[in-house]
Amino acid sequence: MPASYAYLGPEGTFTEVALRTLPESATRELVPMVSVPAALDAVRNGEAEAAFVPIENSVEGGITTTLDELVAGEPLMIYREVLLSITFALLVRPDTKLSEIKTVTAHPAAQPQVRNWLKANLPDAVWESAASNADGARLVQEGRYDAAFAGEFAAARYGLEALETGIHDAENAQTRFVLVGRPARPAAPTGADKTSVVLWQRDDHPGGLRDLLGEFAVRGVNLMLLQSRPTGAGIGNYCFCIDAEGHISDRRVAEALMGLKRICLQVRFLGSYPRAGITPDEVRVQPAGTSDGEFMEAADWVARCQDGRF
Amino acid sequence: MPASYAYLGPEGTFTEVALRTLPESATRELVPMVSVPAALDAVRNGEAEAAFVPIENSVEGGITTTLDELVAGEPLMIYREVLLSITFALLVRPDTKLSEIKTVTAHPAAQPQVRNWLKANLPDAVWESAASNADGARLVQEGRYDAAFAGEFAAARYGLEALETGIHDAENAQTRFVLVGRPARPAAPTGADKTSVVLWQRDDHPGGLRDLLGEFAVRGVNLMLLQSRPTGAGIGNYCFCIDAEGHISDRRVAEALMGLKRICLQVRFLGSYPRAGITPDEVRVQPAGTSDGEFMEAADWVARCQDGRF
Repeated sequence: MPASYAYLGPEGTFTEVALRTLPESATRELVPMVSVPAALDAVRNGEAEAAFVPIENSVEGGITTTLDELVAGEPLMIYREVLLSITFALLVRPDTKLSEIKTVTAHPAAQPQVRNWLKANLPDAVWESAASNADGARLVQEGRYDAAFAGEFAAARYGLEALETGIHDAENAQTRFVLVGRPARPAAPTGADKTSVVLWQRDDHPGGLRDLLGEFAVRGVNLMLLQSRPTGAGIGNYCFCIDAEGHISDRRVAEALMGLKRICLQVRFLGSYPRAGITPDEVRVQPAGTSDGEFMEAADWVARCQDGRF
Repeated sequence: MPASYAYLGPEGTFTEVALRTLPESATRELVPMVSVPAALDAVRNGEAEAAFVPIENSVEGGITTTLDELVAGEPLMIYREVLLSITFALLVRPDTKLSEIKTVTAHPAAQPQVRNWLKANLPDAVWESAASNADGARLVQEGRYDAAFAGEFAAARYGLEALETGIHDAENAQTRFVLVGRPARPAAPTGADKTSVVLWQRDDHPGGLRDLLGEFAVRGVNLMLLQSRPTGAGIGNYCFCIDAEGHISDRRVAEALMGLKRICLQVRFLGSYPRAGITPDEVRVQPAGTSDGEFMEAADWVARCQDGRF
């Protein structure tokens, strides 16, 4: 395997900062890519060991480009996730004053998170979208715009200074990133794990989604993300990207996945991996009757009944 | 094992007629008992190999004495069931005319099934309950009452004649009987089987019964009987006697029972046995995804995912 991680570039974005929080990134060559599909393709065609891409935003929801790439094409698997709090700095060329700012720029995804701040502080500034927050900073460096919203960390790289920091409309605005590789045996459970799957219904019928969710509920498996995505087969045809609490080696999760496999047209397993930002102590208490031990006792009891020893 | 079957006596009742439809009854001594508890005790204390008792009536519902006996005490197991259509004959001493009948008798359970006939044909007759329909016939023979409702087959035994036959208020009035023995390995599935269990909830909470039923529904297991019975722990405390389609060796049934075992305070397995009155061809088509083959394929798929081979 090539010892490199592809990531959604350019350098100096939140994605790179998030990637560098993973200890394993220190021993890999980190290769910025122009898009999420390009980063994932680098994994699929063997150029990179893994790809690091944003997948969910606490303000905007699921990041559809990433979800759609994982849903289709050669199967990939999520190995790790990283949660990063997103706050923006307003980067300007040195000695620029707030009153001198006529144009601002950033990646379009930044816009909803700085909208209120702009309205209150720079109501007359003209917004121009950039290809990335880092690219916006570069364009400010080149004099194309007066100011860019970007991570504070981008200032030094582009010779800018932060006129204001900690800009965010939503409290606790976070982005979730995932490290994606080729299918392999998932890492052992840590006690605070998550399992991602994509589900396609067999047919459209009343209660269809509820039936899918019932497979989780009846085994006490809590869901953390449900995002519907068009299947491409016409309006009204959706598949479901689901994150569930627990690891595929947990009996309750394994049995839920078996149930889904039986009733769905297709199920794509996207991996079981440690949850970011939570320790095993903080994981919610499981409902009674859903531990591995209880699953095994129940199986033993049924075996005894089948055998007439009860 | 003693080669005898205890049954709810006396001789000459519907119970005996139903028992004699079982081929194995021909090679056993058939011993009438005074009550359902007495018949089941004969099995528990080893005096009888099995007991044959009524358990469900299509007009009145579950027969609570039998259910309560199976719910409590030493575990017993249902081996066979028999369905018998119940129509009554009006038995009288020879040469009695309808107009001469002033008093009628039968077991109280017969009353709701002959009520309308009585109103139309003998509106002024006085009803007196008998300990059994056969006992009622005997009392007519002895001259205590003018007429008895009983099975037509009882006429010859008591020197009576049937003044009218085919009396039943509900069309298709049937009684279900079961042959009950000590726990043993259930007979192999026939393709038209039934599984009986008793469930005690772990705690009382909104949706509690629905959760129990969900364990069946999510595996495509259809229910045929749900009868609540007081647990004896006070008003509002019930256990549930449930008959489900399928055999405990069916994967869907086994997994449902495991789920119930995990979430219930207690589960009592009462047996898997052939359904009476239906052939495997007539059994309803199972929902997609619930065959043994599909269960095994799903388990294989999860094992491959756990192993990174997907």
